[in-house]
Amino acid sequence: MTAQLKLAPTSTYKALTPQTVTGWLEAQPTIAAILGGKAAEWQAREVGDGNLNLVFIVEGPKGSVVAKQALPYVRLVGESWPLPLSRAHYEYYALTEQQAWAPAYVPKTYLHDHDMALTVMEYLTPHIILRKGLVQGKRYPKAAAHLGSFLARTLFHTSDYFLTPVQKREKVAQYLTNTAMCKISEDLIFDEPYYAAPLNRNTPELDDVAAALRADTALKLAVQQLKAGFMNKTEALLHGDLHTGSVMVTEDDTRAIDPEFAFFGPMGFDIGAILANFFMAAFAQEGLETSKGERAAQAAWILEQIEVIWNTFSAEFTALWNQRSSTGELFNARIATPELQAEALANVLKGIEQDALGYAGCKIIRRIVGLAHVEDFEAIADTTRRASAERKAIAFARRLILERSNIGSVSNAVKAAQT
Amino acid sequence: MTAQLKLAPTSTYKALTPQTVTGWLEAQPTIAAILGGKAAEWQAREVGDGNLNLVFIVEGPKGSVVAKQALPYVRLVGESWPLPLSRAHYEYYALTEQQAWAPAYVPKTYLHDHDMALTVMEYLTPHIILRKGLVQGKRYPKAAAHLGSFLARTLFHTSDYFLTPVQKREKVAQYLTNTAMCKISEDLIFDEPYYAAPLNRNTPELDDVAAALRADTALKLAVQQLKAGFMNKTEALLHGDLHTGSVMVTEDDTRAIDPEFAFFGPMGFDIGAILANFFMAAFAQEGLETSKGERAAQAAWILEQIEVIWNTFSAEFTALWNQRSSTGELFNARIATPELQAEALANVLKGIEQDALGYAGCKIIRRIVGLAHVEDFEAIADTTRRASAERKAIAFARRLILERSNIGSVSNAVKAAQT
Repeated sequence: MTAQLKLAPTSTYKALTPQTVTGWLEAQPTIAAILGGKAAEWQAREVGDGNLNLVFIVEGPKGSVVAKQALPYVRLVGESWPLPLSRAHYEYYALTEQQAWAPAYVPKTYLHDHDMALTVMEYLTPHIILRKGLVQGKRYPKAAAHLGSFLARTLFHTSDYFLTPVQKREKVAQYLTNTAMCKISEDLIFDEPYYAAPLNRNTPELDDVAAALRADTALKLAVQQLKAGFMNKTEALLHGDLHTGSVMVTEDDTRAIDPEFAFFGPMGFDIGAILANFFMAAFAQEGLETSKGERAAQAAWILEQIEVIWNTFSAEFTALWNQRSSTGELFNARIATPELQAEALANVLKGIEQDALGYAGCKIIRRIVGLAHVEDFEAIADTTRRASAERKAIAFARRLILERSNIGSVSNAVKAAQT
Repeated sequence: MTAQLKLAPTSTYKALTPQTVTGWLEAQPTIAAILGGKAAEWQAREVGDGNLNLVFIVEGPKGSVVAKQALPYVRLVGESWPLPLSRAHYEYYALTEQQAWAPAYVPKTYLHDHDMALTVMEYLTPHIILRKGLVQGKRYPKAAAHLGSFLARTLFHTSDYFLTPVQKREKVAQYLTNTAMCKISEDLIFDEPYYAAPLNRNTPELDDVAAALRADTALKLAVQQLKAGFMNKTEALLHGDLHTGSVMVTEDDTRAIDPEFAFFGPMGFDIGAILANFFMAAFAQEGLETSKGERAAQAAWILEQIEVIWNTFSAEFTALWNQRSSTGELFNARIATPELQAEALANVLKGIEQDALGYAGCKIIRRIVGLAHVEDFEAIADTTRRASAERKAIAFARRLILERSNIGSVSNAVKAAQT
C-alpha cells in the first residue's frame, strides 16, 4: 500500500468552520450515530491551539467527536508558508498503526476523509494537554509509564526486530513521501538554531547563548551527525513530534495525539523528544514559583518521571523482544542463541538510549533559540528568571549532545540535571 | 517516479533464446540500426555465466550489443527458487543513475523493455571479467583507481551530502521495493553462513572453521549489527553486488555491470564488497601457483590495489564534497563553516571506512562457507591448498569484523593481510 498523496487541495477540499462542520458531519452516518439527534442540536467549537491545523470539538445529545482538518499552510505563520494536506493522511495511517499495537494510548479514529484532509476521532475528555498540567504544577502519576509503554509497543512492532523485510519496506515506503513534515524537523530542529535564521527568536537576555551556539563547531558537528541519523536510519515508525503538547492526560489515562510528522526514523528520536520536554518542564519549575521552593518537589517529581519513561520503555521492549519466536529479520532465532539474543538486546537498547540523549539535547535547544517555543518557559513572565532557566537547560542540552557517551544512561542524565 | 513493479511474468514475457533474440531485436529500430544489415546476418550467442539471468551477445555487420534478460527464477538453483523479473527494472534504473554520475565506468544502455524484463546495452569488448583476469595472474593497472572513482561519484551524488531531501526520498522510494534482491543479501551474506543452512557448502577440510563460525557469538552479533546497517541506513544508492565478477576490464577501461541488487544502503557496503573480492584474490594467489613464489608479486600487487581503491575513493569524495556549494541537506553551508566542513568530512569518511572493513569481512566469509563461492578459491584444484588459503581468509575476515575499530583504516587492513 503506497500513500495516496495530495500535495495541493482539490476542488473538493474546503476548510470547515464551526458553522459548517456540523453540516458536513451530518452527512456521515457513522458520525451522526455517535453524536445522536439532529445537526441542529450539535454544538461545535474550534479549539486548535497548535501550529498547523483546525480542530473542532462537536458535541451532540448522545456523544462527542473531534474533527481535525489540515490547512494548506502553516497556521502559526500563515498562508505564506504552504504545507501539503497530505500530512492528514500520514497522521491517519500512523494512528491506525499505533492503534494496532498500543490502543490504550492513542485516540480512537472514526472516519478519515481523504479529499477533506480530515479525520474524525474520539473527543478525549476531561483530558488536558500534559504540558499545560505540568506548567500548572499538576502530577499525572501514570503518564510516564504509559508513555514508556506506548513507545516500546509502537517502536518494537514497526522495526526489523518484529517485521519481515517485505512488511517493513512496504511501511517505510508508505511514509517516505511525508517529506514536507520531515523537512520542517530537519530545518527547525537541526539547522535553524545554529545560524541566524529569520524566524529564530530567544529571550533577550539569552542573546549571548544563542550567539555561542551558532559559533560552536563541536556542537554543530554533533547535531548534524544526529541529523544524519534522523534522515538515514529507518529503524521504526516514529510519532515524529512526541512532545508534552502532543500528549493528553487525566489521572489514569494517557493518549499520544497528532502524529502528522510520522516517518521511519531512529527510535531514539521519539524517546528523546519526550524526555527533552520533561527535562524542560523540570528546568522551568523554579521560574514558575510564586514563592521560594514552591515547585522544588514538582521539579524532582518530573525528573523521576524521566527515569520511569525510560525504564518502562526498556522493560517492555525487553519483554516484546523475548516473547518473539521466529518473527523479525534482525537477530532472528535461526542464527541467534539465547545468549546472543540477550547480548544483542543489551546493545540495541544501549544504542537507542544514546540516540535518545542526543536527540533530547537537540529538542531542548530548538525550543529556546529556534522558531517554536514551549509554554513551560514562556509562562515565566519575568524574562530574567526565564532566561536563567533557559540558560541552565541549554547548558544541560549541550552536555547531552556532546557528552552522551560519558553520561552513559538516562538515569545518569537525570542525576546531571538534578545538580 | 515510483518503480513499476512486475512480480510475475505477464503474457508478453517470453524468455528469449539465441534463436529468437535476433528476431526480437530486429523489431527495435534503434538496435537494428546499431547492428546494421538484416537479422539473418546477425550472430547471437548466450553467455550468461552469472547466477540469475540470460545474457546474449548479438553481433551484426555494423555493431554489436548485449541483451540481458531476467528469468523468473534463480538460474543457479532453478525454477524452484522464483525471483521477480522486477530486478531488471531496478538494474536499468541504477545503470541510468550511474551513467549520470560516472558514465566512463558503466556500460551504455540502448533500450529497456519492461514487459520482457530486458535491457539492451553496449557489448564491452575486448573486456574480460576482472575476477577471471586476476585468477589468471593478469594486472589491470587502472582498474583500482577507476573503481574508487566510480564509487565516489555514484555514492556522493545519491546521498544527502548532495541531494535535497525531496530528491533523496523519491529515489529511496524508487528502490525500496527491490525487496527480493535485498532479501537474497540479507540471507546469503548475513545469516546463512552462521547456521547450518541447507545450501551452504565449504571445502571439506574447512568443516571445523564453518562449525566454529556458527558457534561464534561475538562474530554473529557483530555481523547482525552490520546487517542492521544494511537494512536501516539509507545513505546512498548502492550497486549492491560490486564484486570482481561484476567488473569488466581492459588495460585502460573499467566498467561496473549488473547492478540488479541496487538499493539505498550504507556506502561502506559497496566499498567493502569490492575490497573483499580483492582480498580474496590476494589470499588465493599462493594456491594458484604452479611453482613456489610464482604468484607472490601478483598477490602483493593486488593488495596494493586495495589501497588505491580506497585512496581514490577518499580523494574524489573529498573533492566532490569541497566543490559543492549550497547543495545537499547534511552539513549544508548555511550552518557549516569551512572548519566544520573539514571536520565533518573527516568523520564521514572514517565512518564509511569502518563500515567498509566490516562489510568486507562479511563478504569474504559468505563466499567460503555460504552458497555462492568465488572462482579465485574454486580454481585451486587441490582442496588442501584451497582450504589453507580459505582458512587464512576467514581468520582475516573475522578480524576485519571484530577488530575493525582497532585496525582503523584500509591501509592497516592491507598491512594485516600482508603478514
